[in-house]
Amino acid sequence: MNKPLILVTNDDGVSAPGIRALIEVAASLGEIIVVAPDSPQSGMGHAITISQPLRLHPTSIYGNVEAYECSGTPVDCVKLAKNVLLKDRQPDLCVSGINHGSNASINIIYSGTLSAAMEASLEGIPSIGFSLLDYSYQADFEPAKPFVRQLMEFMLHQGLSAGSLLNVNIPNRPEGGIKGMKVCRQADARWVEEFIEAKDPRGQKYYWLTGRFVNDDPGEDTDIHALERGYISVVPSKHDLTNYEAMPELAPIEQFVVLT
Amino acid sequence: MNKPLILVTNDDGVSAPGIRALIEVAASLGEIIVVAPDSPQSGMGHAITISQPLRLHPTSIYGNVEAYECSGTPVDCVKLAKNVLLKDRQPDLCVSGINHGSNASINIIYSGTLSAAMEASLEGIPSIGFSLLDYSYQADFEPAKPFVRQLMEFMLHQGLSAGSLLNVNIPNRPEGGIKGMKVCRQADARWVEEFIEAKDPRGQKYYWLTGRFVNDDPGEDTDIHALERGYISVVPSKHDLTNYEAMPELAPIEQFVVLT
Repeated sequence: MNKPLILVTNDDGVSAPGIRALIEVAASLGEIIVVAPDSPQSGMGHAITISQPLRLHPTSIYGNVEAYECSGTPVDCVKLAKNVLLKDRQPDLCVSGINHGSNASINIIYSGTLSAAMEASLEGIPSIGFSLLDYSYQADFEPAKPFVRQLMEFMLHQGLSAGSLLNVNIPNRPEGGIKGMKVCRQADARWVEEFIEAKDPRGQKYYWLTGRFVNDDPGEDTDIHALERGYISVVPSKHDLTNYEAMPELAPIEQFVVLT
Repeated sequence: MNKPLILVTNDDGVSAPGIRALIEVAASLGEIIVVAPDSPQSGMGHAITISQPLRLHPTSIYGNVEAYECSGTPVDCVKLAKNVLLKDRQPDLCVSGINHGSNASINIIYSGTLSAAMEASLEGIPSIGFSLLDYSYQADFEPAKPFVRQLMEFMLHQGLSAGSLLNVNIPNRPEGGIKGMKVCRQADARWVEEFIEAKDPRGQKYYWLTGRFVNDDPGEDTDIHALERGYISVVPSKHDLTNYEAMPELAPIEQFVVLT
């Protein structure tokens, strides 16, 4: 059997320690190609670059591993990998991350890491976004690696029939401290924003986004609940945002008539 | 009864004809505040600006209408409106657009217009993203206005109990040519990308994203189906991306054990 082809990307940039950890695991499971942003792209969500050109360069920072850095967003990286570099070769799996910091709950929509994975799933590629709940550059990815490997093997060998995107968040615990994995739903949590207001060196006012994450979702089946108890949360996700439950209430609008 | 407070934003920039059309309709229904990007932000998806400061300036281009331009993304505009400008005043409605070009189907995840509306809905503000299927700057928004007004009135006076975000796309038809409105689901369509590959003036290679939109979804209940037949498509949307159907198949991962 041929080795599976695994596309690796992230949003913290091609040189981040988190993607190095992911490359190390992926390289033990198949042939890999790395296409990642040349600079940090956190918070880029599902942004794509349409009003300017993109640059794509090979990089040798991972030795013999085929790797490229791209001037665009994480979603751009997946599009370039698929359409320029791989062309007719369809990856068997796309993995994105390991992100330095949580992408649990509503963070999935702000996250470049998860948007890259979602873009791959739109192309029919099974995909996983991984995030560790430690924002620091020196985060320790070692305790996560056995679980990352098991999830990649699950998606490569068994996979899912209904949808193919996993949002995986990993608690920041030392070796042996992670209790296992839980299949969860996305918690209904949100950010409460506070903007720092200050003046720049020229005396002009600016605002800088900050905020705190608030979870009012009491569910015991959520990703946040699992993470708080030392489990890795695994949320199967999808790109159909239709709110089917709301459709009946909207029915009256089909009766609107424009009087002319 | 007090006039409702309506927050108006977009992704084509504060000076785009589409937002002018939306401001004209909104101003007839309530008190309005406009906070929009100072430059085009198409394709920004749910991007937020976290690594640099934001600028926010009043603009007088809409006369007596309170309006601001912001250096950030559409989602940044909503966050600044909510947290810096309005503070304790909660808008009764947020409207985003009218976008120059379609945001039907999967475009909801790439669209700054819809991401701004989604951000407002995350804050508990009923919201609508409007898009006209005409990419040109000279697009004619007049035929859409009566429907835009009716949808805004529906959301202000009746609203929805389950979720509060509408993705509204309007066919590009002359006065009298729009047949009505249909409540739809998001079509399972996608972009087939092609990158233009060329050299810049310094002889360096670049790539520029292009593509064509392909709809293989045969459903007669989709937004694309309605639009092709001359109807305005109204898709109620939500931010829970959990793929509930896939959860049972993932159950085996909860049995994984790390051997140490």
